[in-house]
Amino acid sequence: MLKKYILTPGPTAISEDVLIEHGRPLIHHRSPEFGNIFAEVLEKLKKLYRTKNDVFVLTSSGTGAMEAAVANSFKKGDRVLVASSGKFGERFKEISEEFGLEVIHLDYEWGSAVNPEDIRERLEDDNKIRAVMVPFSETSTGVINDIESIGDIVKDYPAILIVDAITGLVTTDLETDKWHLDIVIGGSQKGLSAPTGIAFISVSDKAWKLIDQSDLPKYYFDLKAARKAMQKNPPQTPWTPGISIIVAMNRALDILFEEGMERAFERHRAMANASWAGAEALGLELLVAEPGSRGFSTTAIRVPESIDGKELVKIMRVKYGVTITGGQGKLAGKIIRIGHIGYVGMFDIIIAFSALEMVLSDLGFKFEVGAAVSAVQKAFMNNNYFNI
Amino acid sequence: MLKKYILTPGPTAISEDVLIEHGRPLIHHRSPEFGNIFAEVLEKLKKLYRTKNDVFVLTSSGTGAMEAAVANSFKKGDRVLVASSGKFGERFKEISEEFGLEVIHLDYEWGSAVNPEDIRERLEDDNKIRAVMVPFSETSTGVINDIESIGDIVKDYPAILIVDAITGLVTTDLETDKWHLDIVIGGSQKGLSAPTGIAFISVSDKAWKLIDQSDLPKYYFDLKAARKAMQKNPPQTPWTPGISIIVAMNRALDILFEEGMERAFERHRAMANASWAGAEALGLELLVAEPGSRGFSTTAIRVPESIDGKELVKIMRVKYGVTITGGQGKLAGKIIRIGHIGYVGMFDIIIAFSALEMVLSDLGFKFEVGAAVSAVQKAFMNNNYFNI
Repeated sequence: MLKKYILTPGPTAISEDVLIEHGRPLIHHRSPEFGNIFAEVLEKLKKLYRTKNDVFVLTSSGTGAMEAAVANSFKKGDRVLVASSGKFGERFKEISEEFGLEVIHLDYEWGSAVNPEDIRERLEDDNKIRAVMVPFSETSTGVINDIESIGDIVKDYPAILIVDAITGLVTTDLETDKWHLDIVIGGSQKGLSAPTGIAFISVSDKAWKLIDQSDLPKYYFDLKAARKAMQKNPPQTPWTPGISIIVAMNRALDILFEEGMERAFERHRAMANASWAGAEALGLELLVAEPGSRGFSTTAIRVPESIDGKELVKIMRVKYGVTITGGQGKLAGKIIRIGHIGYVGMFDIIIAFSALEMVLSDLGFKFEVGAAVSAVQKAFMNNNYFNI
Repeated sequence: MLKKYILTPGPTAISEDVLIEHGRPLIHHRSPEFGNIFAEVLEKLKKLYRTKNDVFVLTSSGTGAMEAAVANSFKKGDRVLVASSGKFGERFKEISEEFGLEVIHLDYEWGSAVNPEDIRERLEDDNKIRAVMVPFSETSTGVINDIESIGDIVKDYPAILIVDAITGLVTTDLETDKWHLDIVIGGSQKGLSAPTGIAFISVSDKAWKLIDQSDLPKYYFDLKAARKAMQKNPPQTPWTPGISIIVAMNRALDILFEEGMERAFERHRAMANASWAGAEALGLELLVAEPGSRGFSTTAIRVPESIDGKELVKIMRVKYGVTITGGQGKLAGKIIRIGHIGYVGMFDIIIAFSALEMVLSDLGFKFEVGAAVSAVQKAFMNNNYFNI
């Protein structure tokens, strides 16, 4: 018997309450019973997004919603600006190129944030840019981008702003309408801690104007078909959706609003702060050097030169039962990523750093055993979030 | 308290054993634990498909897998032949047109089967046809097409054969390799009675040759990306999959093989035979006039002229708790469809016809109460399937 803990940037552990909803018998997706649940979920997603725009529910991973954003918004040959510093930002570039768009790529060092002023400069120079695509929380590095500033810039140009908020939603305040975000993408399996398989995507009036002119091929991800189905009473999806996941999401959204969104943001911030303190107490370097660019969903830590990050992750999972993730792409083996997103409390961070200490010790790294754990404890003890 | 029964052509009721698997805590999709389950599921799907081809798992509805077949197999402007007689066959046409293909449509009356010889004639006349697309079991009418004969024809031409077997798999024998079927599409929520949200697609060597030349845009449904991920050890998916659904499918596939595939086909045949007898005992007409064209997943029954089919379906659900489906597209209001697919036994058919009798009586239709139920009982009593 080895107790298992999932502390990855997603999928995230599902709470017992949500698992029970998820395990309920099937209800038919064309029944009023499901329609009423779906209507509730759609309203709750709008509250989460802080938007009056429609939020659509797709049965796919977040990547499917990224494809939906691209395939619905453009005409072949359209020019788009991708601003990114990690694997998921690059995915926007890959999808856009696959669909025949011309991509200008503002490519920052992995671990740095996007500079909003660079976006302004490009938009100022080039009125043919139809969209800016940028990740909010870049899951491969833990960076958070300043979407509020980017939104404030893009709103004055013809381009729309497409935001991958998959690990950003729930972990950090995001104001879809106030920040002028045209398309915002989220997923069921991240901050909401619902099962994997559902993505969401909000669409502004400015984006609909582009969608109306789009000539790229789409069928499964056709947002006009989704809109038509959603306008029925009760609302529907054009194709059979992941019914049980949506039912589970309804409970997960309730749990979020019972906690309160502001409290949820503060909780994620507290988890992140404690994790940074834990890493620093071990003398390890955080990948994101600039504190203001560190997101609250994921802490990326550079692995000491002498240690293979992949080996570290493997031992942590096999010997200690704690699943974290390593680096992706060019950071493979060089960093570890501790996810503190969704259904996560303070003792999960204690577990993560306790296990990390034990693995580092197994691998011969020299440090004072307990240093990280006590630093994490102190961070929590000094955090106002926990003063009730 | 109103006990609920789902007897639709899908999604189908999930068995308690599968629901329990589905409600388990999350395992990470990059963990060896999930990888091993996924490897098992892939092997079991090959057994279900009776194929040596790879079977890919997509997180989407069956429509997503239909799009995958189209977007991966063709070049812009390619000519394809769609042979169909219902809503789901027409979906092949819609997707193909959306992706810029030239579609020749062999369009049969809804309720009739496709004539394989018409396909031979078209292929003989036109060597530019790159594919034939046809549904196995047409869910909107209950028709089953003679895919064995169509496969025997198409194999001698350059065209590939793409089969929508979404409600055909598990309900009726399907031999992917022996029948020369190049691409076969299935879904989690039909004969397998697993939760909604996963589709499968098998790909033959002949189809891979087309896929290698394809220039249509695809990213989320890219089968080359799926193949690359599946070749890892243990196998993976390129994007985050519907993890819990795949875990549930693993149990559902075990349950199928414990029953035995031949027994499952015979069970579905027995359910269909009894349903036809029930309808006929009420003096109602089956939509599929030709007995040899009636599939075993769904019985479509013409509603008497005096009765609104939509009203019938609604009363059956609201007053009696039994969910069946009405007609789609041009058959809306004119037929009802009783699904007897997946986790269905003889008393489910008794329930369906008992409820149908009571609704028909509510709506003033004249018949001898008990006629359908007793006909269903007699059909079961005379069926060898139940002699154990």
